[in-house]
Amino acid sequence: MTAPLPERSAAREALAEIGRRFYGCGWVMGTSGNLSAVVSTRPLRLLITPSGAHKGRLQPADLLEIDRRGRVASGRGRASAETRLHLAVVDERGARAVLHTHSVWATILSRLHLDAGGLSVSGYEMLKGLDGVGTHEHREWIPILANDQDLSRLARRMRAALRRHPGAHGLLLAGHGLYTWGDSTTAAERHVEVFEFLFDVIGRTMEARHGTRENPR
Amino acid sequence: MTAPLPERSAAREALAEIGRRFYGCGWVMGTSGNLSAVVSTRPLRLLITPSGAHKGRLQPADLLEIDRRGRVASGRGRASAETRLHLAVVDERGARAVLHTHSVWATILSRLHLDAGGLSVSGYEMLKGLDGVGTHEHREWIPILANDQDLSRLARRMRAALRRHPGAHGLLLAGHGLYTWGDSTTAAERHVEVFEFLFDVIGRTMEARHGTRENPR
Amino acid sequence: MTAPLPERSAAREALAEIGRRFYGCGWVMGTSGNLSAVVSTRPLRLLITPSGAHKGRLQPADLLEIDRRGRVASGRGRASAETRLHLAVVDERGARAVLHTHSVWATILSRLHLDAGGLSVSGYEMLKGLDGVGTHEHREWIPILANDQDLSRLARRMRAALRRHPGAHGLLLAGHGLYTWGDSTTAAERHVEVFEFLFDVIGRTMEARHGTRENPR
Amino acid sequence: MTAPLPERSAAREALAEIGRRFYGCGWVMGTSGNLSAVVSTRPLRLLITPSGAHKGRLQPADLLEIDRRGRVASGRGRASAETRLHLAVVDERGARAVLHTHSVWATILSRLHLDAGGLSVSGYEMLKGLDGVGTHEHREWIPILANDQDLSRLARRMRAALRRHPGAHGLLLAGHGLYTWGDSTTAAERHVEVFEFLFDVIGRTMEARHGTRENPR
Repeated sequence: MTAPLPERSAAREALAEIGRRFYGCGWVMGTSGNLSAVVSTRPLRLLITPSGAHKGRLQPADLLEIDRRGRVASGRGRASAETRLHLAVVDERGARAVLHTHSVWATILSRLHLDAGGLSVSGYEMLKGLDGVGTHEHREWIPILANDQDLSRLARRMRAALRRHPGAHGLLLAGHGLYTWGDSTTAAERHVEVFEFLFDVIGRTMEARHGTRENPR
Repeated sequence: MTAPLPERSAAREALAEIGRRFYGCGWVMGTSGNLSAVVSTRPLRLLITPSGAHKGRLQPADLLEIDRRGRVASGRGRASAETRLHLAVVDERGARAVLHTHSVWATILSRLHLDAGGLSVSGYEMLKGLDGVGTHEHREWIPILANDQDLSRLARRMRAALRRHPGAHGLLLAGHGLYTWGDSTTAAERHVEVFEFLFDVIGRTMEARHGTRENPR
Repeated sequence: MTAPLPERSAAREALAEIGRRFYGCGWVMGTSGNLSAVVSTRPLRLLITPSGAHKGRLQPADLLEIDRRGRVASGRGRASAETRLHLAVVDERGARAVLHTHSVWATILSRLHLDAGGLSVSGYEMLKGLDGVGTHEHREWIPILANDQDLSRLARRMRAALRRHPGAHGLLLAGHGLYTWGDSTTAAERHVEVFEFLFDVIGRTMEARHGTRENPR
Repeated sequence: MTAPLPERSAAREALAEIGRRFYGCGWVMGTSGNLSAVVSTRPLRLLITPSGAHKGRLQPADLLEIDRRGRVASGRGRASAETRLHLAVVDERGARAVLHTHSVWATILSRLHLDAGGLSVSGYEMLKGLDGVGTHEHREWIPILANDQDLSRLARRMRAALRRHPGAHGLLLAGHGLYTWGDSTTAAERHVEVFEFLFDVIGRTMEARHGTRENPR
């Protein structure tokens, strides 16, 4: 993770474009979802979407710059309560970008598999889109945490889950969606697309399966 | 609801953009759906989509301005017969914008749950996109009314339902779609996205569920 | 059907825009689908999409002008073999625009219901988007014809079906898609959206239904 | 396959547009998928998407030019490991364009039908979008190969499958997606749309079927 930090203006542009693309994919409805990128490490500075922003209309100037306590250093608007989850991921993983989407399938699967504590995915070429994964035989464990309106507590639980699962590339909050990250906005966006694709495949396989007697392998 | 009223030109622009976005989401097919915004309260003036407008091509100049009886005060075209439903919501809720969408899942769920009189939704983070809702544990009751071509009667039944369910943020007409509202076009659009997302989740959960033995919580 | 005929340039623009919108909806994949509009009645002249055109890239200049026998009067390219189906509809219904789409759900439902000879649809507000329909209680019968590569024979069978079902607003070719029409490109496009919406609702209701014990009404 | 070769600039433009359209269709998520076009036969030169390119942002200048061994002749970036699969198809079929998509339904069906060695499709008008197919009664056999991270071995297996199935217009890699081709980028794109449409139809028919007692024919 020694890639150079992006220019603020380039990071603003990248996040705004990602927001508009994700809106087009239906992953950030109802002003859900949050997007952030690290633009300085010492001191830590994050660009992040403000609370209540419509991602389909997101503009570079809409992004807030926050410090490591989540205080707004520049920009108009209020930082989302979920800012501390972004800071937890940056801290635990050294991530340079953290993206939170809220798709239909992530919502459904995160509830169906909450009791199991996570979702195991293997056998898909798409897994190779995750950093460091070189084969479809890779088994990705996606931890699922119960949702919580106490964001401090949720951030602590997220940190603990990230430590327990050092190989995880993302995690799900039940009924709430996906958090994933990367060493750049490009890598983090790729991770979102990989996970959302896999959720779609897993969900539709459940729908289609009982129409056949063959077992998917 | 003491937010300043929008300029007419801004409200026209906002409604036209919402129409085009909703078309892109597939929620206003076949010239279905109606969008309105209050631009004056004394006397009451509403901008509203004309009857038969294709929402994917909606332009600011297409919107009609109507008075509290639904008469066209300015603009070319005929006000939709559903105008009185918009006026009922404005009157009962003090709404500044009323949006009616007509999606596939709203149509299906409104018929499947008509006998139950409504649809209960809880446990989803997305619920926090509804005004005044602070937790996913909130239980939203979405009343469902039988459809009716007598719009005066339907407007009276809608008023009665709104009074019976003062906490409701939207309601469904069976086989016909969603009505929701807000204190701005921005808030009302967010409500549409929240409800349509939830309908999608509920519908697809029904499809996927019988493929698993786990129960969603 | 005494509306004035559109200017050729306006009709070209309208059809090209419809093609691009339908591509965005996924209804004309693989160069499937054909779009036509009457631009002269005496003698009869139709603008129609050429064989093999990608509808997502359709431009006004791409459209062919043909006569009542389907011969190309102006434009580059070959008229589709299905041109005679368009001419049959124009002749039988006095239509000013004929649109043929080829969607996933139309394909599935046309095969599932071929033995029944058609699909009956009632109870949906969306039906009011069909010309002359004033209530959701209307029952629309959508005839389904077996597909046939002998286009002369298929055109004759289509004419016979149109005469047998004078109230029908559209018909399905099994495994092949929808034909619908209207007294303008605007009306015909509305009919496509109405039918495609209804096919989507009917298909997804089939998927969702067995997950519930309630019966849709 | 004696059509004139496209100008390099036109081929670059065509592939970039295809990439952006496929992204809009959800077929190349997570930087998956690869697109190539032959721009010279003696010596063989292929334009191909570089490894890790986001297809939704693909620009003409992003494409690499490679030789028959997959070495980059011009352009910045690394050729995808799957380049040799493209070269295998060009060699075996004399294809002028090879497109690899990675859709949800292709992923699901390729796994469900791997044991059967392929997927048989018949009865759909859409099949006529495949080069040389003149009737919906055509039976297309789509071979399915197990996925493999040894790309040399996979390329050999792909060559063998292409020889065993000389009539095949495409093939599936299990859990990995579709390869198809054509004598131009236009033809290859049409083949992708035809196959992806058919996968969607087959997948949704599986979902819908158990809701009915009628058998699709």
